[in-house]
Amino acid sequence: MELKDCNREVLNDLKFLKGLLAAAASEAGATVLGESFHQFNPHGVSGVVIIAESHLFIHTWPECGYAAVDIFTCGDSVQPEKAAKKLITELGAKSHSILEIQRGILDTA
Amino acid sequence: MELKDCNREVLNDLKFLKGLLAAAASEAGATVLGESFHQFNPHGVSGVVIIAESHLFIHTWPECGYAAVDIFTCGDSVQPEKAAKKLITELGAKSHSILEIQRGILDTA
Repeated sequence: MELKDCNREVLNDLKFLKGLLAAAASEAGATVLGESFHQFNPHGVSGVVIIAESHLFIHTWPECGYAAVDIFTCGDSVQPEKAAKKLITELGAKSHSILEIQRGILDTA
Repeated sequence: MELKDCNREVLNDLKFLKGLLAAAASEAGATVLGESFHQFNPHGVSGVVIIAESHLFIHTWPECGYAAVDIFTCGDSVQPEKAAKKLITELGAKSHSILEIQRGILDTA
């Protein structure tokens, strides 16, 4: 997910982003297993929440109002679109694009 | 990156995968900032290495010989293809596919 023209202040707020990713995972019905966040100097945050159903990642460039988000899920119990919607809203993204990729398409030989 | 027909034993070896992801990041010229790994029961590993230039992620399904890998980098100093090559080799992937996606294409208005 590409999030543009976001609220620049929240993009640099590690504490806010940590809570937001956990809340987005929860909203999607995912089970949070772990997390790791890093604040860059002078600005920018990278953070991941590992969920039982894979992961949510965010990298922010506050100076550009831009965030790259990956929502990687597996199974049928999670609703990634709910996490996406929460992130778009809470980051105040005025424009966004979503690319959906199917992973692990295996031959059933 | 989709890695198929891998060595199933190593796909379930958290310790090996932790070392491999760090080594792949290093091979690519990236700076490792943090990591988080999780072993699933009865099998499967999820793991991330956060680098100064973004992240490397792996999710494994040993029972299918399959691993999904994301190599997310920014800037010109990192060579993600070197990390990719190392992962393909060390996991013994007999077949693989790589999809490259440009992120953060911003208007320079």
